[in-house]
Amino acid sequence: MITYRNATESDLQEIISIMQDNILGKNRENKDDLNNYTKAFHEIQQSPDNNLIVMLNNDKIIGTFQITITPYLALNGTKRATIESVHMASNLRGKGYGTQMMQYAIFLAKEKGAKLVQLTTNKKRIDAKRFYEKLGFVASHEGMKLNII
Amino acid sequence: MITYRNATESDLQEIISIMQDNILGKNRENKDDLNNYTKAFHEIQQSPDNNLIVMLNNDKIIGTFQITITPYLALNGTKRATIESVHMASNLRGKGYGTQMMQYAIFLAKEKGAKLVQLTTNKKRIDAKRFYEKLGFVASHEGMKLNII
Repeated sequence: MITYRNATESDLQEIISIMQDNILGKNRENKDDLNNYTKAFHEIQQSPDNNLIVMLNNDKIIGTFQITITPYLALNGTKRATIESVHMASNLRGKGYGTQMMQYAIFLAKEKGAKLVQLTTNKKRIDAKRFYEKLGFVASHEGMKLNII
Repeated sequence: MITYRNATESDLQEIISIMQDNILGKNRENKDDLNNYTKAFHEIQQSPDNNLIVMLNNDKIIGTFQITITPYLALNGTKRATIESVHMASNLRGKGYGTQMMQYAIFLAKEKGAKLVQLTTNKKRIDAKRFYEKLGFVASHEGMKLNII
């Protein structure tokens, strides 16, 4: 049975494991030191605009995403939902769970008053782009990043 | 003299004028009916994660952008700043004001604890991509959108 809920602090280790479990995440996450993740988790939890969601299959976490609601003036004051940090347990990819999770994310976006859903996906993840296109997303924009450390 | 401040409700008409003043904004914004913009403005103002900024040249608004700070678990709990709705008065483009405004946006992002700045830019705006690349941004991601009206 598939269910969704807000992540809790005790989910963190499992969530980081799923985030690590792919080519790009492998070297940039470290679930052995949860300090910074815990700090970020509390900031997400305290933000009225953010929700970190987990997808469960019979009480086991199999997927996760973060939804951010942002009011903008553009497009006659259209509220947007940003879906990021979308991750699915690697042994369950290609089985429709990801589609189901994104459909839930879109449902949540509507429920929160958004009229536009946006996300960015690394150009190296060619499968991911195709996955989102099947859901109706259009790659109309460049997603640009700048490290300022 | 160039200054920056948070936008106020009485700036709205001027901000929408600047947003309208380009090929993509021309047909999608309407400064004659401010109702929805005013509602969105108050939501931006009330959100602790969002600031709508105006750039002034001797007290006249010449540019605007919105900065959104979002905590994420990814990259060891890295906080990100999203810069969107970047607009400059058309008669002042290509004179360095945009660069100056983005440098201020990046300064603000750092001040708010972000270690990564991100933005999306419509692929139709070829000049904009080049402009952001000169500032050090890398177009590593696809920016994907889905209307859910």
